Amino acid sequence: MLELPIDPEIIDDDNARHDAALTADYAALGHQLARRGLSIDAVTAKVASFHVALPSWGVGTGGTRFARFPGPGEPRGIFEKLDDCAVIQQLGRATPGVSLHFPWDKADPAELKAKAQGLGLVFDAVNSNTFQDHPHDPKQPLSYKFGSLSHADAAVRAQAVDHNLETVEIGTALGSTALTVWIADGSNFAGQSDLGRAFDRYLQSMKAITARLPADWRIFAEHKMYEPAFYSTVVQDWGTSYLAATELGPKAFCLVDLGHHAPNVNIEQIVSRLIKAGKLGGFHFNDSRYGDDDLDAGSIDPFRLFLVFNELVEAEDRVAALRPAHMLDQSHNVTDPIESLIRSAGEVRRAYAQALLVDRAALHGYQDDNDALMASETLKQAFRTDVEPILALARLKAGGAIDPIGAYRASGYRAKVAAERPAVRGTGGGIV
Amino acid sequence: MLELPIDPEIIDDDNARHDAALTADYAALGHQLARRGLSIDAVTAKVASFHVALPSWGVGTGGTRFARFPGPGEPRGIFEKLDDCAVIQQLGRATPGVSLHFPWDKADPAELKAKAQGLGLVFDAVNSNTFQDHPHDPKQPLSYKFGSLSHADAAVRAQAVDHNLETVEIGTALGSTALTVWIADGSNFAGQSDLGRAFDRYLQSMKAITARLPADWRIFAEHKMYEPAFYSTVVQDWGTSYLAATELGPKAFCLVDLGHHAPNVNIEQIVSRLIKAGKLGGFHFNDSRYGDDDLDAGSIDPFRLFLVFNELVEAEDRVAALRPAHMLDQSHNVTDPIESLIRSAGEVRRAYAQALLVDRAALHGYQDDNDALMASETLKQAFRTDVEPILALARLKAGGAIDPIGAYRASGYRAKVAAERPAVRGTGGGIV
Amino acid sequence: MLELPIDPEIIDDDNARHDAALTADYAALGHQLARRGLSIDAVTAKVASFHVALPSWGVGTGGTRFARFPGPGEPRGIFEKLDDCAVIQQLGRATPGVSLHFPWDKADPAELKAKAQGLGLVFDAVNSNTFQDHPHDPKQPLSYKFGSLSHADAAVRAQAVDHNLETVEIGTALGSTALTVWIADGSNFAGQSDLGRAFDRYLQSMKAITARLPADWRIFAEHKMYEPAFYSTVVQDWGTSYLAATELGPKAFCLVDLGHHAPNVNIEQIVSRLIKAGKLGGFHFNDSRYGDDDLDAGSIDPFRLFLVFNELVEAEDRVAALRPAHMLDQSHNVTDPIESLIRSAGEVRRAYAQALLVDRAALHGYQDDNDALMASETLKQAFRTDVEPILALARLKAGGAIDPIGAYRASGYRAKVAAERPAVRGTGGGIV
Amino acid sequence: MLELPIDPEIIDDDNARHDAALTADYAALGHQLARRGLSIDAVTAKVASFHVALPSWGVGTGGTRFARFPGPGEPRGIFEKLDDCAVIQQLGRATPGVSLHFPWDKADPAELKAKAQGLGLVFDAVNSNTFQDHPHDPKQPLSYKFGSLSHADAAVRAQAVDHNLETVEIGTALGSTALTVWIADGSNFAGQSDLGRAFDRYLQSMKAITARLPADWRIFAEHKMYEPAFYSTVVQDWGTSYLAATELGPKAFCLVDLGHHAPNVNIEQIVSRLIKAGKLGGFHFNDSRYGDDDLDAGSIDPFRLFLVFNELVEAEDRVAALRPAHMLDQSHNVTDPIESLIRSAGEVRRAYAQALLVDRAALHGYQDDNDALMASETLKQAFRTDVEPILALARLKAGGAIDPIGAYRASGYRAKVAAERPAVRGTGGGIV
Repeated sequence: MLELPIDPEIIDDDNARHDAALTADYAALGHQLARRGLSIDAVTAKVASFHVALPSWGVGTGGTRFARFPGPGEPRGIFEKLDDCAVIQQLGRATPGVSLHFPWDKADPAELKAKAQGLGLVFDAVNSNTFQDHPHDPKQPLSYKFGSLSHADAAVRAQAVDHNLETVEIGTALGSTALTVWIADGSNFAGQSDLGRAFDRYLQSMKAITARLPADWRIFAEHKMYEPAFYSTVVQDWGTSYLAATELGPKAFCLVDLGHHAPNVNIEQIVSRLIKAGKLGGFHFNDSRYGDDDLDAGSIDPFRLFLVFNELVEAEDRVAALRPAHMLDQSHNVTDPIESLIRSAGEVRRAYAQALLVDRAALHGYQDDNDALMASETLKQAFRTDVEPILALARLKAGGAIDPIGAYRASGYRAKVAAERPAVRGTGGGIV
Repeated sequence: MLELPIDPEIIDDDNARHDAALTADYAALGHQLARRGLSIDAVTAKVASFHVALPSWGVGTGGTRFARFPGPGEPRGIFEKLDDCAVIQQLGRATPGVSLHFPWDKADPAELKAKAQGLGLVFDAVNSNTFQDHPHDPKQPLSYKFGSLSHADAAVRAQAVDHNLETVEIGTALGSTALTVWIADGSNFAGQSDLGRAFDRYLQSMKAITARLPADWRIFAEHKMYEPAFYSTVVQDWGTSYLAATELGPKAFCLVDLGHHAPNVNIEQIVSRLIKAGKLGGFHFNDSRYGDDDLDAGSIDPFRLFLVFNELVEAEDRVAALRPAHMLDQSHNVTDPIESLIRSAGEVRRAYAQALLVDRAALHGYQDDNDALMASETLKQAFRTDVEPILALARLKAGGAIDPIGAYRASGYRAKVAAERPAVRGTGGGIV
Repeated sequence: MLELPIDPEIIDDDNARHDAALTADYAALGHQLARRGLSIDAVTAKVASFHVALPSWGVGTGGTRFARFPGPGEPRGIFEKLDDCAVIQQLGRATPGVSLHFPWDKADPAELKAKAQGLGLVFDAVNSNTFQDHPHDPKQPLSYKFGSLSHADAAVRAQAVDHNLETVEIGTALGSTALTVWIADGSNFAGQSDLGRAFDRYLQSMKAITARLPADWRIFAEHKMYEPAFYSTVVQDWGTSYLAATELGPKAFCLVDLGHHAPNVNIEQIVSRLIKAGKLGGFHFNDSRYGDDDLDAGSIDPFRLFLVFNELVEAEDRVAALRPAHMLDQSHNVTDPIESLIRSAGEVRRAYAQALLVDRAALHGYQDDNDALMASETLKQAFRTDVEPILALARLKAGGAIDPIGAYRASGYRAKVAAERPAVRGTGGGIV
Repeated sequence: MLELPIDPEIIDDDNARHDAALTADYAALGHQLARRGLSIDAVTAKVASFHVALPSWGVGTGGTRFARFPGPGEPRGIFEKLDDCAVIQQLGRATPGVSLHFPWDKADPAELKAKAQGLGLVFDAVNSNTFQDHPHDPKQPLSYKFGSLSHADAAVRAQAVDHNLETVEIGTALGSTALTVWIADGSNFAGQSDLGRAFDRYLQSMKAITARLPADWRIFAEHKMYEPAFYSTVVQDWGTSYLAATELGPKAFCLVDLGHHAPNVNIEQIVSRLIKAGKLGGFHFNDSRYGDDDLDAGSIDPFRLFLVFNELVEAEDRVAALRPAHMLDQSHNVTDPIESLIRSAGEVRRAYAQALLVDRAALHGYQDDNDALMASETLKQAFRTDVEPILALARLKAGGAIDPIGAYRASGYRAKVAAERPAVRGTGGGIV
């Protein structure tokens, strides 16, 4: 029996205020799509079955190296984080999975599973953390200041490998089947590390982890161009990530974080290449303007998000083995994290819905005819269709809110938890 | 009577090991420069009189939003920071000035002055801090989460103005004559702030500060393209900084931080434009590869640093009123901050020395003749001259070390302070 | 009596096929907007009165330094270019003005005016060209290889000034009231030109032009970060453009070309700053992914285009004097230029229409409350509204086509002119 | 018997003017290096044996899409191009190989070989050209406007494959053993081409070429992020290039053009990765500030060029199979191409010489100890050594000029050929 954090009556009341408008808009959009030969209900059904995982750390307020400005009612541990995640799922119905991060989220696995079950949540990929020191973890006495899986010192590498294996062990107990590895290894100055040997050591460590992965598990390697290392990172781009995944074998895949690329890079093309190579593991969704800004998905360049989904939908029918993991990975510095995650999950679904509207037969025809303008317009027409009624109905039918932000605000959840959870006026930076 | 932190004998011993080589190299370089019509001693004299200020916060270990990995013997307060600055100055002889940051460095001004005097240091520009909350400062109860000088709420703006004025007051007591203002105001999302009205509020606040500046003071506004705000910053580029400085009047100047620009931007041209406009206030030196990386000056693109100094030397004779402030502003995450600051001051002097070697008469001739290749080669020839003997002799003659890093390591200073200053194993990010 | 290039019956026939759908979609959108407190007809009226000028050179096929691949039926001179422009205006009804470029478009002014009048066109800003040599123009014997208005040689500068004044003279005869100046002056290597003196010479030349501008004329200076000069350009950014416009006085304004900025730069903020400074002259609309790509407006990042218009609409009521010039400036390499210009004019209007839908009272409220999420969503809601019915009805009511690309293809215009205008199989491109 | 274009006496005379200075500088540097444990003569010998190929097209003046401003005495065909290349080799002695481009350089192979032999030149890798149309080549009637090796139309692909095979055939006759393939295939708009299928077609075509490559040949694929396609290119980065090279087998390698990357990308790390993967084929050297600027090697960021060579020298001893091809690929728009190529070859050698000075044992020690500062300084010390005496002596001993630009100017070669070769005042540039 579920115990959801928001009183369903509040949601019902809020929905009642929007119901007539939604009905009208959905009908109008349905007619328009029918003229284009599309069944709106079929699209809504596909959207309803699309899920994106929540990052447990995302429900806390993020910061920069300069400062972190906490908000009221921040979760103090993984159980409160799960409560917040349940709010997001209850209202938006797009995010049943939660991705945990260790050692941050360490707790008794049985308690975690029970808690999640009661909230209607499941556990997605687990994440290791060797980019921070863990002075209170007796198994990790050595510092990661100069690297982890690629560290020059074998003892640090062994510690990092063990931490990853422990994370897999916990994940297994939780029902996860994937490990996401992001390392902060790299250098700040030319010469600081030997670019070649550091990569060799990384491969060696990753092989040690992969070798002991359970049979049904996948391992996702995340590339990132820079930060926290400012001259080089060991897995700096998809090329290196792919090179590694090839060496690591069939369990290893590349994970694409939308914020981890050089300026101007065509991300959807990387997605296309990784699909072709059979190595697309999944996504960390967010948006960015300048670098790894970790802003809300779709908030800066919504067309780019759409184009990523255009590649995924394009490949859906062609590539049988494709089953990318979808996860949000954002830093919420100036918004209520619950609100940002609700809307970001919605934006990811929006991009998917728009991509489903693309007239692919027409598109392929224009492509084969080199009709650049009509090919471009075919995508643009799908993109500019306002699919909000589809998203809203998918939420509504699944028990969620037509206007999830509005319903959330009406619920008074933030004020309630603010009263229960003492404020932590931190001065540090960091994503914790 | 000075009480310098390093035993002069250690320096003398270290110098003795390098003296013969320096003499030989200096002589050889002198002959080479003489062939080019240059007096090496004249260059050395100019270099010796060139100073760059130290940032008090720079002697601590920096970090990123992900983590901070402290080093041994970190200074626990402003007095220990001054000790560390004195080491840098004693060995390098390029950095007699220290730039303080408030409220971080708050202490009794008389004690500060006495301490500095005993170490042979003086105080350079003072810096205000309205990019962090100051929960322990009774005069700053309001949060800067959503801005400071441009905040939508007049009460926050007033608090930020008052903090700046208090900083000026302290600076006056310390003998400073310039206030550097860097604000973190901006937005993470389009729409979050009204780009126009936010700038109007910034101008209004800056006018309130400028109006109460002592007669002999200057105010430096620092522009920055992004971070900690990821969609817009209020003073995002030199254009806005210049627009503001014009409105603020003759005391206001633009400060160029080398790391605060969009990718590929030609920084030396901005320097040229600000000189032309009479609004170049000074520099925050550092280097960067990806963004505001705050790496050691000259470590990533030494030619760029040289080109900035090429503009300054070019203007030295033409523009009488030019007197830019020079300061290091870096974040040392993987090095001993004392070592990074010693070498960075050296790199700034190196760029200056190289710029002094440019054959300007020949350069102007090539420019007027559109001889692009020889004009380019004229700069390159100066840049590729190894001026290390000049820098070393300038240090030696002023009482410093020929090889300041080597002498510092020989001194055992870091081990000594590590024993005296308890380690703080922080987990936060941030530059503090 | 107008003689339009497309048979009106073709347009009527095509419209008849789309009329019912448009009526339904317009009604549905009208209801949705009414719920938001907006009158769709009022929006349509504003959109209908919004115009953007066509570049005469845009109806030819562009290329890169590597090659140019001409299309069929390219116009052989200004009169055929005007024919093509008339097609764009007849179908889209957004582009009555044409911007000429000299000496490319030189012809008898009276004939030009008569031709334009017959096609229902008028002349917008005129453009000078000192970025190419004009070996057949007896008034321009000197080469611009090393610059024009900022050239080291006074004779070249004088020639360039004279060419601009001649362009003004022709423009006056044509009814234009603005001169757009884009220069290619700059350098490929550090040292090649003296950054400061080159700018002084530019200002001197621009003053000579501005001094002889007719009373009702404006002069627009276009900044550009790079290309064709790859180390520095003389007017590299809006800061320099603004500095110049200030020195040049009240007739001088800054023109923002959307493709002329460093990566990641926030263009809408530059628009906001120039509005505040009273120096926004106008726009060259296009889109770009990597640099000055000159792609079709709105094709790469439609949200960015919307945000520019959001600033313009924001300022419309606040800033009485604001009257920016709107012009397309694109390079059509792989599409029929007529089609690209039709849709680009539509995209510019689309962005304007979406910006008109922003609930500004709500937005300002969220901004003042630091409600970043709802402020962001307020813009996003406007942006994701599918305003195509508004654009289509505006065209229809003005005599244009509901589906202008479809109607254009139905008309057979391209095939017709391809038969009349001999193909020029150029091998162009700079490096051959 | 060689017939070199420059009278050896002119070179001797010029050398005589510089000889004493060179002797002194070489001796002084020798002493300095000896103190560092290095034999200057050993370095000079290695530098002397290092060669970089000339691009036949590089001796012509380049341009941009806006204009091309030819210089005096431009070569009118491949035989005159070879004359100019011989000047570069005679003076600089670093460039015995010339890389031809077809169909531009088509001529009787026997005549070409004889001509080259007489000038002391050999032929390096051959280049195909499917980025331009060749209206006068009866074997290439179809247009490459919409692609070549990846074109949607099989007939165009076949034509492009055949052209590459013909290029190999010519190359075989000339003694070349490598084919460099750069294609301009890509798209300007999202949707214009199917990113996945276009890559499949590219692979299919490349396989057809590779299958018919002679036994001792290699094929180099060049990646490029953008331009002439502005939304996507088919081989956009090293990841795609590597993916292709893997599919194509042991004859296929990746070629790194220094100007073909996204902003801020760490090119030396790509070099390191390709070495590790056994797929580094070679380089196109040039420098760039904004994009594919094709400026003179080492002119913009000399430290970057050094770091590339640092990786190559690092791998020299470790990786037996490594034998990268070195070629210049630049566009000379404002300089005499001969001068730019002379100095660029020198800059490449300079970077190599500096990389040879790195104390690798010390570097590896610092790296293993995480001594970031000293590791960084170890590279910087090598970089800032002025190795000009080494370069000059290597030229002198091989029969070249101490000051090759000076000797070239003294020779009057440009004036001589300007008198012989009629000026072509082109108006080039794509958009006209």
